[in-house]
Amino acid sequence: MSVLVVGSVALDYLETPFGVMEQALGGSATFCSVAASYLTSDVRFVGIVGADFPQKHIDFLTKRGIDLLGLVREAEGKTFSWGGKYHDDMNTRDTLYTELGVFEHFHPVIPDAWKQSDFVLLGNIHPSLQMEVLEQIEQPKLVVCDTMNLWINISQKDLKKVLKRVDVLILNDEEARMLTDQRNLITAGNMLLRMGPRVAVIKKGEHGAVLMTRDTYFASPAFPLETVKDPTGAGDTFAGAFVGWLARTGDVSTANMRKAVVYGSVLASFCVEEFSIDGIRALGEEHIAERFSMFRKITTF
Amino acid sequence: MSVLVVGSVALDYLETPFGVMEQALGGSATFCSVAASYLTSDVRFVGIVGADFPQKHIDFLTKRGIDLLGLVREAEGKTFSWGGKYHDDMNTRDTLYTELGVFEHFHPVIPDAWKQSDFVLLGNIHPSLQMEVLEQIEQPKLVVCDTMNLWINISQKDLKKVLKRVDVLILNDEEARMLTDQRNLITAGNMLLRMGPRVAVIKKGEHGAVLMTRDTYFASPAFPLETVKDPTGAGDTFAGAFVGWLARTGDVSTANMRKAVVYGSVLASFCVEEFSIDGIRALGEEHIAERFSMFRKITTF
Repeated sequence: MSVLVVGSVALDYLETPFGVMEQALGGSATFCSVAASYLTSDVRFVGIVGADFPQKHIDFLTKRGIDLLGLVREAEGKTFSWGGKYHDDMNTRDTLYTELGVFEHFHPVIPDAWKQSDFVLLGNIHPSLQMEVLEQIEQPKLVVCDTMNLWINISQKDLKKVLKRVDVLILNDEEARMLTDQRNLITAGNMLLRMGPRVAVIKKGEHGAVLMTRDTYFASPAFPLETVKDPTGAGDTFAGAFVGWLARTGDVSTANMRKAVVYGSVLASFCVEEFSIDGIRALGEEHIAERFSMFRKITTF
Repeated sequence: MSVLVVGSVALDYLETPFGVMEQALGGSATFCSVAASYLTSDVRFVGIVGADFPQKHIDFLTKRGIDLLGLVREAEGKTFSWGGKYHDDMNTRDTLYTELGVFEHFHPVIPDAWKQSDFVLLGNIHPSLQMEVLEQIEQPKLVVCDTMNLWINISQKDLKKVLKRVDVLILNDEEARMLTDQRNLITAGNMLLRMGPRVAVIKKGEHGAVLMTRDTYFASPAFPLETVKDPTGAGDTFAGAFVGWLARTGDVSTANMRKAVVYGSVLASFCVEEFSIDGIRALGEEHIAERFSMFRKITTF
């Protein structure tokens, strides 16, 4: 089944204790769609880049089988760019700069042929842009929404409008606490479910992720990694793989969403092992299958 | 099989956002032995109390089937007492006071009949006292050691001597990082295993626990709780149930230790729901079995 991904495309500056990367391919739509492309075939990409966006990145996305019909390539202006520096603990980071470039006036336009996409993944962008996507799509099977602390801080009202219209909300533990003003994560999760979505997926970094519905709870650990080189895009990667698995199977049951959480964790674990998109640039099916089966091994008792 | 438990017995002052309790039954040996008593029958208690220790607590422990042959009841002096205040997040606490009382000059004496106990649980007390226990016991099937940040800070040398002689080390994530000076928990766990124990169990509070050996890894979530009234003794309870399950089954394989981790998590989840020992004062077998099976439900994918 088809997956429509809408989000940002970026050329990032990344600084972590393991090194520096300039002009690194990034953005929520990029990570989401690349991750999804490992699990399903019909991935549809909506985003915007500037004149400086290297052809090699276009080629890479195309080679991954991602349909770029919805990618606007502006003849002038620069691609969105974010600069970030991770602290030694890898859990906190400083934003060094944010240059919106062509993204400043971006309004997602969904091609007519894509308006009936089965799965819609609202990648991490301003909630008002996510709403514009929802206004254009027709009867999707499932809408999944990712977000971040920035929007909870500056656009909470818009975000809450979006939440009323999504099926699955994906966010991290800090964001869940911020959005609900609740310290206890179970209480926070239950409050999120009262805001609209029927499923809340709360990511906890090295502690894994939980999936909550009104009457079920699922907890998955993170894959045990000694080396995390660059956490950028891990959340987007998780969301992309989550939706990718659901689209591959066409099954939106809670039971199948548990598997989707594990696929999200598997792809995210590859993502953070290298800078930028490099950790998920060229995975084989066997790599993914092996790590998925490792999740069974490390959780069985 | 028999479980020898050595640790502190206390009358605590507890203050949490949910209330205050004075003269609350506490101490590592207390929580450890009560938890173990739900899973196995031959639990042997070594500790010390003062003249002020209420008979009702003795009666309670006896009723739980715990053998108090090793409990020294001093005719004079006060029982060890700790006063603690938990902050709103329940994850941090201030020690208000520590009155050692009769515990100050305590040296554990293992009754002759108990020197060949199958399982030895070194509850959270000074490492030099833990070492005194090890000097007295003969060929135990398994030695499990609990510890805390205090001993890592002030008696690390003694602790490291103990670690060379234990099979399983149980501690929390903060303590694992402190003892190894490593931020990454996998790296920290691997370093712990090089200090002596063949198994490291790292507790992560609301994020569950992991069990590591040189070549295996197991991750268990915590039981999802909306209300935590008093975390005191949760770690001791975990350790007691962990050993209790191993003693009940007589099986010290890594596979069986995974089940022991889940039993530890089950009993700890009951513990924190009430003040002091009250959460594990009167559990039925069905309560434990039900929550154990819930752990399967919340981790299955």
